[in-house]
Amino acid sequence: MSRPLEGIRVLDLTQAYSGPFCTMQLADMGAEVIKIEAPIGDQTRGWGPIVNDYSGYYAYVNRNKKGMVLNLKAEEGKQILRELIAKSDVICENYKVGTFAKLGFPYEELKRINPRIIYGSISGFGINGPLASRPAYDVVAQAMSGMMSVTGYPDQPPVKIGPSIGDNYSGAYLCMGILMSLYKREKTGEGCRLDVAMLDTLFSVMENFVVDYTIGGFVPQRQGNIDPSIAPFASFHAKDCDFTMGCGTDKLWAKLCVIMHKEHLIDDPRFKTNDDRCKNFTPDLDKEVNEWSTTLNFSEIEEKLVEAGIPVGQINDIKQVCELPQIAARNMLWKVYDPGFKDEVSFPGCPIKIQGVEDEIQKPAPLLGEDTDKIMKEILGYDDAKIKAMHDADACM
Amino acid sequence: MSRPLEGIRVLDLTQAYSGPFCTMQLADMGAEVIKIEAPIGDQTRGWGPIVNDYSGYYAYVNRNKKGMVLNLKAEEGKQILRELIAKSDVICENYKVGTFAKLGFPYEELKRINPRIIYGSISGFGINGPLASRPAYDVVAQAMSGMMSVTGYPDQPPVKIGPSIGDNYSGAYLCMGILMSLYKREKTGEGCRLDVAMLDTLFSVMENFVVDYTIGGFVPQRQGNIDPSIAPFASFHAKDCDFTMGCGTDKLWAKLCVIMHKEHLIDDPRFKTNDDRCKNFTPDLDKEVNEWSTTLNFSEIEEKLVEAGIPVGQINDIKQVCELPQIAARNMLWKVYDPGFKDEVSFPGCPIKIQGVEDEIQKPAPLLGEDTDKIMKEILGYDDAKIKAMHDADACM
Repeated sequence: MSRPLEGIRVLDLTQAYSGPFCTMQLADMGAEVIKIEAPIGDQTRGWGPIVNDYSGYYAYVNRNKKGMVLNLKAEEGKQILRELIAKSDVICENYKVGTFAKLGFPYEELKRINPRIIYGSISGFGINGPLASRPAYDVVAQAMSGMMSVTGYPDQPPVKIGPSIGDNYSGAYLCMGILMSLYKREKTGEGCRLDVAMLDTLFSVMENFVVDYTIGGFVPQRQGNIDPSIAPFASFHAKDCDFTMGCGTDKLWAKLCVIMHKEHLIDDPRFKTNDDRCKNFTPDLDKEVNEWSTTLNFSEIEEKLVEAGIPVGQINDIKQVCELPQIAARNMLWKVYDPGFKDEVSFPGCPIKIQGVEDEIQKPAPLLGEDTDKIMKEILGYDDAKIKAMHDADACM
Repeated sequence: MSRPLEGIRVLDLTQAYSGPFCTMQLADMGAEVIKIEAPIGDQTRGWGPIVNDYSGYYAYVNRNKKGMVLNLKAEEGKQILRELIAKSDVICENYKVGTFAKLGFPYEELKRINPRIIYGSISGFGINGPLASRPAYDVVAQAMSGMMSVTGYPDQPPVKIGPSIGDNYSGAYLCMGILMSLYKREKTGEGCRLDVAMLDTLFSVMENFVVDYTIGGFVPQRQGNIDPSIAPFASFHAKDCDFTMGCGTDKLWAKLCVIMHKEHLIDDPRFKTNDDRCKNFTPDLDKEVNEWSTTLNFSEIEEKLVEAGIPVGQINDIKQVCELPQIAARNMLWKVYDPGFKDEVSFPGCPIKIQGVEDEIQKPAPLLGEDTDKIMKEILGYDDAKIKAMHDADACM
């Protein structure tokens, strides 16, 4: 079965992480994504891990894309982009708000060139409102969204989420917006203008934290690794590592008591109902579980809890998760020979699994300007003389 | 302009958070989402915040949906579902892997009833592989994915992300899968079978952490709130609150030195290049910035840094982010009168902003079984006698 987005052409003027993560999804699912870089190249080409002078960061986020270098400060560069817009379905950018318009490409102009174009942008705060023009980094969006205030231990400072989820989650939302717009265009024939902000995105994935305030009337605080409304539901210590485990029902709690050889706790008034257990989790229940779990290796704990149907998992480090048989069975590490490294490398695969659709990488990320001439020739129909003229005018590379 | 998914009908057999979060996106963008609950109701109807005996959690995640109660243990209940499948575009579930098939609805059967149906499921670990049948909670997926191992301070234990992002991010990915399948169906006329796992999803949003290991060859560790490759890029203390700030270039760093009245640091060999600053961030550079920032209120710091083009943001608590003028300007708090609360309430809105498309809530979440009879009548064409017979057979509620 062919990939869902085959036949779709995407012009990708994004760089760094948020935008390229969006277009990576589109490329993974079969779209022809043309990454358009300025002559200086995407800044991620310098981001670690660097091996053989080549960036693992860049190579991961730009797999499956074609690469072209355009100089949008040159009139001829702008003209090449205009011609590409006329022959594309989607265009994405994550410039500072207003910059792409200043370069000569406001939405009205894109739409004039191609009324079917779907134009999406990502920014820190969106294209309107008092903060629209402010620059942002992921860590700023994480801070302002409230995400950090509810992550971490109550007696410790707020914590940033390790990966830049303000970036990648806004990329995922722009991808959703583009996909629904592609569907709609099949019905109406018309393109549209989408924008997604990092602050909006993180604010909208806060689970109950926002409604705790807007409906519940209280300001939720960070709770470490516990769920304040279910117990036991937290991280614990085994002899050899830490793990998380949850008993969502009285029945699972009773099973845990049997496994711990602490049947007397089932009728203990401190732990009788879920409410009781929540109230007495710290320090009593936490202590009871750790007293048992710290005497065993995780593999022994896991065997017993899985047998009883209690959700449990080790707190893996990155090596451990990469080596999980489940990750292999789900084909979540894609392998490819990448000439940038002169070696085979592996990246996280796409988590959308579609029965019957190939689930592997098509091509490594482009070297700088790898497909520039080919795109001018094959998509725009330029002959060799015109291609040479474009290079001579510093329009491309 | 109409919403992109108008005319699409989604049967939503999901409960809790991951699946309902997926179908919430579809409903927000105009799909007719029919939430099908067992007679006992979605478990989130009991989840906090609870106000007037009604759940803010449930109300938030199920806004814009219709509600129907079916008893899938009764043959007549199954029959109603079969008839609905014949008249729908998408069906979603997040049962334990295998349960929906055991109820009589393997994909082959869904496809037999309706070859155009797009069938999506979410689970902890996916529908294949050694862990397929294991139950999972968000905190288990966060632990196993490596996410917790890279979140938190180096001298403190691993930290769970506050909101359940294993749940909501897998919901977002299933939504992407459904949207691309809807687009593809316009071309081929065929439906498909999608599955998304929480473990896969979190593993795929780890930014450079996975390639640090698979390409860079090292196991990345948690770093608190700093970016180990850029400095200063971290959280700091103002007199009245904490904030994050980043200087991504030498130029911004020099501007910061001027703002701090510490021009002598620009040429200080400890801080001359970004590499120098990274190496000497802890404790020297961190101390220099905090020495300055703790003498000022955040509003003073913000004014100076914004003026200089340095990204900066307060670490807001949930009340503070809800009250941000930018959140209001972006219409990120949707208001609706919800009869469940007998009051107007507000929820986070959709972060996908499409120019010209209405950006507001259509209807509050359904009361239990609110639309059951209406759906049997209007979609399935049942008459009053047949509807009564279905109730008498305990097929619905």
